[in-house]
Formats: sequence, C-alpha cells, structure tokens
Amino acid sequence: MSTTGKSNILFDTVAIVGVGLIGGSLGMALKSRSLARRVIGVGRSEQKLMRAKILGAIDEYSLDFETGAADADLVVICTPVRLIVPTLERMSDSLKAGCVVTDVGSTKREVVQAASAAVGEGVSFVGGHPMAGSEQAGVEAGFPDLFLGATYVITANDKTNLDALTRMTKLAAAIGANVEIMSPEEHDEAAAVISHLPHAMASALLLLAESSQRAGGKTFRLAAGSFRDLTRISESSAELWRDICVTNADALSETIGAFSDALKDFKKALDARDEQAIERFFDAARVIRQAYLRIAK
Amino acid sequence: MSTTGKSNILFDTVAIVGVGLIGGSLGMALKSRSLARRVIGVGRSEQKLMRAKILGAIDEYSLDFETGAADADLVVICTPVRLIVPTLERMSDSLKAGCVVTDVGSTKREVVQAASAAVGEGVSFVGGHPMAGSEQAGVEAGFPDLFLGATYVITANDKTNLDALTRMTKLAAAIGANVEIMSPEEHDEAAAVISHLPHAMASALLLLAESSQRAGGKTFRLAAGSFRDLTRISESSAELWRDICVTNADALSETIGAFSDALKDFKKALDARDEQAIERFFDAARVIRQAYLRIAK
Repeated sequence: MSTTGKSNILFDTVAIVGVGLIGGSLGMALKSRSLARRVIGVGRSEQKLMRAKILGAIDEYSLDFETGAADADLVVICTPVRLIVPTLERMSDSLKAGCVVTDVGSTKREVVQAASAAVGEGVSFVGGHPMAGSEQAGVEAGFPDLFLGATYVITANDKTNLDALTRMTKLAAAIGANVEIMSPEEHDEAAAVISHLPHAMASALLLLAESSQRAGGKTFRLAAGSFRDLTRISESSAELWRDICVTNADALSETIGAFSDALKDFKKALDARDEQAIERFFDAARVIRQAYLRIAK
Repeated sequence: MSTTGKSNILFDTVAIVGVGLIGGSLGMALKSRSLARRVIGVGRSEQKLMRAKILGAIDEYSLDFETGAADADLVVICTPVRLIVPTLERMSDSLKAGCVVTDVGSTKREVVQAASAAVGEGVSFVGGHPMAGSEQAGVEAGFPDLFLGATYVITANDKTNLDALTRMTKLAAAIGANVEIMSPEEHDEAAAVISHLPHAMASALLLLAESSQRAGGKTFRLAAGSFRDLTRISESSAELWRDICVTNADALSETIGAFSDALKDFKKALDARDEQAIERFFDAARVIRQAYLRIAK
C-alpha cells in the first residue's frame, strides 16, 4: 500500500515461536502486509516448519530454541499457555537489546508476571491475546486475514515499556485487529466471564444431559439447534482448557460463584412460584443483551 | 402427491386457535399438502385473521371461541402456554363427538393433565410440541415447511385415546416433522435440560456480564462471537419464558440444582488446582458431545 516509498515495516526481523494456526496466520499477515522484512519460524518439528515456509507463513526456520530468535526485533510466542514462560526462559539469554517479546496466550496475569521477570535487561515483554481462532488447528488452517475485525488485547501495567507497548499496538492494528489495552487482571476477569465460564457451563450442561439421557432416554431426542450451538465449544481440547482454567483459577472460581448465586436466586423464585421475580430475571437479561448488541456494533 | 386418486385428507375440518407463526405455518402446511379439506382460524383479532386468510393459512375464520370450532374434527390450540386450558374450557361444550384436540405448548405435564379433564366425553386430547419456530412471530413469518425436519413431540399416557394418538402422529409426520412419542413428564424433564435450563443460564450469564462490566468496564469489549451466540436466546419475550418456567417449575428447579452441583464440583477442582479432575471434566463433556452428534445425525 506504500505509494510514497515509505516502508510499512514495523519490526525488521520477527521470530514466531510455535507456527500453528495463530502463529502461522500472524506470519502470513506480517508478510502479506510487508510489516516485517524477515519472519523466522522457531519450533520443534521440521516437517511443520517446512510446511509453514511453503505456505508463506515464514521465510526461514530454526529448530534451536536457544539461539533461533537471536536476530529478532520482535519475538511472538505462540505456544500453549503453560509453555510460554518455559519457552521464553530457554531463549532469553540470546535475545538482543531492544527486542520486544509478546505472547498470544488466553490468560494473562500469570504469564505477564512470570514473563516480565524472565526477560533480560533491555528486552521488553508485552502480553497479548488476539481473540481469533477456530475449531481447526495447524498452519494449514491459517490465513492472513484471521485477525481482521478480531479483538486483540494488549496488556499494560506500571512496569510496561511504553515504547514496546506502542509498537505492539501498531502491529495489532496493522493486521486489522481492534486493539484493546487493559491490565492483565482486567483481561483475566473479563475473559472468565465471557469465555471461561461459558466453556464450563457448556461442559456441565453436557454432563447433565448425559445423566438425564441415561435416566429417561429421551433427552437427546429433544436436543435441537440451540443445544447443539450451545455445546459446540466443548469440542476443543480438554488439555488446552485445563491449562486456561488453571492459569486463571482465582478469577474463574469467583465468576462461577457469582454465576451460581444468580442461578440460585432464579431457582428460589421458581420454587416460590414468584412470577414477577421470574419475569424480571428474563426481562433484565433481555435489556442487557440489547445494550450489549448496541455496544458490540 | 396422490397419483391413485386416494385422498391425503387426515382430518376433514381443522380449527386452528391462535393463528400466529406456529398456527399459521400449520395451516399452510395442511393446505399445501391437502391434509385437511377446510381450515378455520379462530382468534380475537379480525385483522390478523384476515391477514392469515390472505396468506393462505386458513380458509375462513371466526371470532367466536364458544362455537367457532364446532365443526372441527381436529382443534389445534396455538395460544401462549397458559391460555391453552382456559381457551379449551371456553370451546369445550361446542366440540363434536370424535373430535381430537391438540396443543403446541412448550411444556406438557400441567397442560395435558388439565386439558384432558377439560374435554367432554367423546372428545380426545393429545398433547403436542412441535419444536420449530424462530425469533420472529406472527403469521407473516409463517411458511408451510416450518416443521420440515423438526422434532414434533406427541405425548401419551395411560389415558390417551390410541386412535387419536395415531391420527396426530400421522399428521405430524405428514407435515415433515420427526415424531417422538413420550409421556408429558418425560417431555418436561428433557425440555428442562435441553431448553429451559440453557435459557436460564444465558440470562444469568448476561446479568453477571453486566455487573462485571459495571465493575471493570472491560467485559463487553472481550465479548466476541461465542458470547453473542450463547446469549441470543435471551432476546425472546420475558412473559413467554416466565410462563414456560412456571408451568415446568418442578422439573426445571431440579435440573438447575443438578447443574449447579456439576458446576460446584468443577469449582472445587479449580480451587484445589486438581488438574486431573479439571481435565476429566472437559474431556467427559467432549466425549458426550461427540456421542450426541452421532445420535443427532
């Protein structure tokens, strides 16, 4: 898009560690928009890295975590959430001064705290969470516009390097995402409500439906479209969700408690046949849904 | 489809009481498939009934609940769930011997019990619940294939007239629905799990999200596709859902209790950082989802 000869490049050399759906799509987004001069993939499987190179997600690759990102101006760690910090610790000594490190993990408080401590002097860590993805996995499912219109949370706290924050914000905007800057704690509390609780709800509903099916044998016969939609998220990997929940256990536990209380109030109204309270419950939810849709638009 | 000259007619004269989305679509389905010779609409609003006639949902109409269905061989009561029995009581004296009465209410135990007592001798009540519909309402949103592939529950218990049951089953199959015969209690227990609890869950989630939004201001910024999908059902009428819940209060209350227990177990595992239990929870749900998809296919 550069018509004035001005370069789009935000980081000269970018290392993507873990080139799956998110890492691969990010590489494609950076290269197709000329936001980086050189993209290096770092991973364990040469076969997967070769595929990523063929698909245009990376220019070159390294199997060496200790030194593979040594040239990078930006390191994006796209491993599963609980491998982010161990991975960073392996590569930390080799990173050059001025390097920015970010991640794409689904929870932020634990990661940001440990990762900020793991980077050496002159290197800045900025937490990130692009809320994009699909039920599919792997670089084969990746595409350069995966982040278009998606919310991309960048975390900041009083220790965050503001120059690194600015550069990460520009990068997320340049790949088409809607950037939201918030503290790691704010992210995790909101994610507990919006994402982690709904996942637990869907799973609990499936467990209940199965025991109801066992008892009466008719439950699944009634399970039409909305039940199917509601429980789709339960198809994701159990390990992945275990790790998300464990790394956000406090906020999620509190959220489950508050949700259970709301449901308990409704059950009480139901047991008392308090029709006004029941209607108020549904009506309040309807009004909130409308307000949310206005904000979300 | 009759190529032998054999008639498709299952009931000579059908009265549809309440000609909205469901009633109107049923009229269109009966007429387009020649399953009834004559369809009479009964309702309160002449304007709406005229519109239903113009749209081809009914042949004629009556504003008189006391006598409007006197000629009917089948009466289908399509009013809101708590008006079914009062409506039936108004018309009961005029119904002719051999008439079959059915309804399309979302809950069945209370309705079937009261409606069975409300019909006179020689008239049979068979409960029904076509699980079709949309967020739209009114005969204008109706179409003759609304029931195609939808689950249509027909209820039976030891008092059900088997001839009437057979005829209703044939009618539901003839409009393209998948017929499931079950007791009113089985229906209500399954519906509590599959439909009524999910509705309460979505509403409680919205209440929680709003209080989280008030506290932190970031919650709705993270609310992407899955949250939007999950809470869509909360757009429906609060009065409608109040009545569904009130007429299925016992089964729904028990279901909410069991669901809360499942969620409490998960919260305990989370608080104890019991990673194996957390993973087992998600993995069990994933396996159930897969089993459900195999059954649902």
